[in-house]
Amino acid sequence: MNPQDENMREEFQADLNEVSRLLVTMAEAVRAALRKATTALLTADREAAESVVARDAEVDEIYRQVETKVADTIARQAPVASDLRMVITALHISADLERMGDLAEHVAKTALRRHPSPAVPAELRPVFRQMAEVADRMADKITTVLASPNADLAAELEKDDDAMDDLERDLFKVLLHDDWPYGAETAIDGALLGRFYERYADHAVNSAEQMIYLITGHPVTQD
Amino acid sequence: MNPQDENMREEFQADLNEVSRLLVTMAEAVRAALRKATTALLTADREAAESVVARDAEVDEIYRQVETKVADTIARQAPVASDLRMVITALHISADLERMGDLAEHVAKTALRRHPSPAVPAELRPVFRQMAEVADRMADKITTVLASPNADLAAELEKDDDAMDDLERDLFKVLLHDDWPYGAETAIDGALLGRFYERYADHAVNSAEQMIYLITGHPVTQD
Repeated sequence: MNPQDENMREEFQADLNEVSRLLVTMAEAVRAALRKATTALLTADREAAESVVARDAEVDEIYRQVETKVADTIARQAPVASDLRMVITALHISADLERMGDLAEHVAKTALRRHPSPAVPAELRPVFRQMAEVADRMADKITTVLASPNADLAAELEKDDDAMDDLERDLFKVLLHDDWPYGAETAIDGALLGRFYERYADHAVNSAEQMIYLITGHPVTQD
Repeated sequence: MNPQDENMREEFQADLNEVSRLLVTMAEAVRAALRKATTALLTADREAAESVVARDAEVDEIYRQVETKVADTIARQAPVASDLRMVITALHISADLERMGDLAEHVAKTALRRHPSPAVPAELRPVFRQMAEVADRMADKITTVLASPNADLAAELEKDDDAMDDLERDLFKVLLHDDWPYGAETAIDGALLGRFYERYADHAVNSAEQMIYLITGHPVTQD
């Protein structure tokens, strides 16, 4: 490797580090967003809900920074093969994280729409609390893997996602029970909210699969 | 421009044409998918629904071809500035189209889950027929713009999306009416289906915005 190549290599590594740093910040932000949105949902906390909606713009802004940084890196470094794959994968991960932020915002907006009534009746709160816990665990793992690549930890998200799917089924059992006393609007809100958490988990799995691809070089087969 | 540059230029243009061709094929496929899924939904047509589910794999395959082609183009041509923007924008558009295919598949799966009963009661069919018409118009415009760039036509999708939002509101008015006679399950299916059409339209708008960015060089401000 001649000195110029070595220089390029260092620059490229610095670019990658910067992109990783942005992705970690995004992952932390969308994790915090869903935590706060869940609080807003379960305690009809208007301020918490409004803060989630307001702060989604920050996530979108980091998303744009990742795009700009990736485009800039490709333009200056002309990476090939696995280097190129790495920067393009970063784009995919940031798109998943951006979408997770949107879904947290949807939860917050549902809480706002029903405020000051709670959007979720008391008997559904336990299942939403559990869905939120699973989602939070997944966002935590993603943040960890982004900061320090670990294919085993990334692979755990598949199992977490199964847990989320089970919880969504439990939720629907309650919503569709003959004795459901709350009418169609609350049933619809419950179903849509369930879908927001389930989609959040799906995007977490997607980004984990992208990370596994990065770390191992083997794609995970997708649906 | 020396002969070698000219050669590169021609190769790059050929790469772009190939990517455009793939995107047009994808757009046509996701348009056909939602048309067929709507038929399956409104007429409880099991074969149509199964065909939509089976053929979503083709859309996913074209999506992977776009990714491979874009990575290959960047690696061989090392495009910069607006050329680089073009190929990265193609990635975003293909991601939106891939998602539109998934949403058509969700509609088809809802029809399958309720088969041989219709998933949608008679009084909701007109609003779903209208939502499907708006979505079809949007997918048609995207196909046209991909084949031949036209910022004015792309901008029309914003208005189509407003029409879709109005229809979704109409749908919810029926679902939430005090006289709703069909119980929670049909209300939930109706709400989720409404969301699938509305999300399909959203992704169509997103991809149109990407195209406007490509054509005019100015980004459309996003939510």
